[in-house]
Amino acid sequence: MLGDDRLRHNIAVRHQSRTGQQVSTDNVSVFSGAQNALFATSLCLLEHGTEVIVPELYYATYPAAVKLSGATMIPLPTDVAKGFQIDIDALEKAITPRTRAILLNSPNNPTGAVYSRKLLMQIVELCRKNRVWIISDEVYAEIAPQDFVSVSSLTGADDITVTISSVSKSHRMTGWRCGWTVSPESLNDQFYNLNMCMAYGLPAFIQDAAAYALEQNEHTAIVVRDKLMRNRDVVKGVLSHMHGAHLYAEGGGMFVYCPVMDSVAAVRVCSVSAYAWMKAPCAGLRREFLLMLKRSLGESLNTLNRITHG
Amino acid sequence: MLGDDRLRHNIAVRHQSRTGQQVSTDNVSVFSGAQNALFATSLCLLEHGTEVIVPELYYATYPAAVKLSGATMIPLPTDVAKGFQIDIDALEKAITPRTRAILLNSPNNPTGAVYSRKLLMQIVELCRKNRVWIISDEVYAEIAPQDFVSVSSLTGADDITVTISSVSKSHRMTGWRCGWTVSPESLNDQFYNLNMCMAYGLPAFIQDAAAYALEQNEHTAIVVRDKLMRNRDVVKGVLSHMHGAHLYAEGGGMFVYCPVMDSVAAVRVCSVSAYAWMKAPCAGLRREFLLMLKRSLGESLNTLNRITHG
Repeated sequence: MLGDDRLRHNIAVRHQSRTGQQVSTDNVSVFSGAQNALFATSLCLLEHGTEVIVPELYYATYPAAVKLSGATMIPLPTDVAKGFQIDIDALEKAITPRTRAILLNSPNNPTGAVYSRKLLMQIVELCRKNRVWIISDEVYAEIAPQDFVSVSSLTGADDITVTISSVSKSHRMTGWRCGWTVSPESLNDQFYNLNMCMAYGLPAFIQDAAAYALEQNEHTAIVVRDKLMRNRDVVKGVLSHMHGAHLYAEGGGMFVYCPVMDSVAAVRVCSVSAYAWMKAPCAGLRREFLLMLKRSLGESLNTLNRITHG
Repeated sequence: MLGDDRLRHNIAVRHQSRTGQQVSTDNVSVFSGAQNALFATSLCLLEHGTEVIVPELYYATYPAAVKLSGATMIPLPTDVAKGFQIDIDALEKAITPRTRAILLNSPNNPTGAVYSRKLLMQIVELCRKNRVWIISDEVYAEIAPQDFVSVSSLTGADDITVTISSVSKSHRMTGWRCGWTVSPESLNDQFYNLNMCMAYGLPAFIQDAAAYALEQNEHTAIVVRDKLMRNRDVVKGVLSHMHGAHLYAEGGGMFVYCPVMDSVAAVRVCSVSAYAWMKAPCAGLRREFLLMLKRSLGESLNTLNRITHG
């Protein structure tokens, strides 16, 4: 129900080496991808009458995942001009006696914002004081820039933090649907019960593959991270030459988020190719933007051709 | 979110050929196994303040799957002496204005009871009259004895029935975690939304494998069914020679359920081997029972050795 022992052991080892947090197999639950891990965390931690604070912008599935538990999602506005960083005073004001958790996602999808150690330490302190859980969606952790800090690496975070991750980004195993939580042991008892009626565990061969992947060195993650950083630099360069375009945030995950004149372009900078799309109905700009990307990113010609002409 | 089109098409074709119910891809949702399909059905059909009638005995995960939705499970007692068949009058009495659904499982796990066409027609009529959904867990359908009747094959069942099945029993693909619902289209919209935040779909290669399996002839299911029937006959023979042992029901699924003196033995009759276990602390009887099974089922010697000496 909690996953294969070998896989859970490997997850615990990887998590501990990445964060320094002392964990064992007993802290790990395996789920059908990070989305399922978030869903399970929501069902087990939250309930009707509780609130979850979610800094804006947030991943598209968060509202539904929170709502399913009966809890109320409280979006926390963040300042575009400050790179979508969390204002600690605003966060403190948003906390009420009903606040059960704050849901963090650094590097952020879609803004690319990465929260600093200082900010995260303030958040941990605030959450301890108010008995609020931290749900930390860290699926981009292993391909994030060097300045990324895991919440669970901070003093005082151990017993109030649920870290969610997967092999999707670090090992390019997105389609394998293998994610997990690292949490206090007490939560694992709840996850066990939930998994018994929610899905009855993952296919053994998928767990074997994930366990094997985690036993290898971090070569794949490093390759992905380095490609992302290169692509990110290319996109930044392209944007710097575009009238009216600038980055809102530094693009720490797989995304950069930027305005292009009166439109908004979200550029996904992934390991093998770059995809680009724009929300505003501005065909001229879209074409210009994509053609510039096309010139810069040789390896993505096919993809960009599809988008430009598609 | 609802599953790969090819797989959903194949499920619709197989369901239609098995039941005669006119369905298409639009009626099918794919989930991580039948358990996950039941869980999703529970979340989408039920809610706080509603009741679900579940005939006894029932599969171990049903209470939790119902409770997660906020609904109340109403167990419906059935008569051991009548082979755990549903008493239609008792069912009618159990229906209240809060009844949202009845959860059926024929062939039943663990009793092995198979509901007759006549009984199921009465249930459909009753459910139509009272606007009650039928959730029909039919995972054993394709390996069931010939007298098995699918609820969805009955007149008037179409728009009130959710049929749950998988490739676990019919194609021995239990560990692959691939199940589905066949339901009115309106429910599929709910399943789409749920899947978006619950699990984000199944691995593509698992769906490919299941789609391929369903495209083959029904040889595997027939092999499994025939082996089950043979093993069932062996176990019945063994039991008929045991003092105080007789079958409660005919063992239509993978199980027979019987009393052995003052203990209860549940005998799992599966396609490759037979497992046996007893609940009562009666070592002498357990040994006798297992040794008799051992003599009768040559192919299961290793398994039975493990159990007898383990």
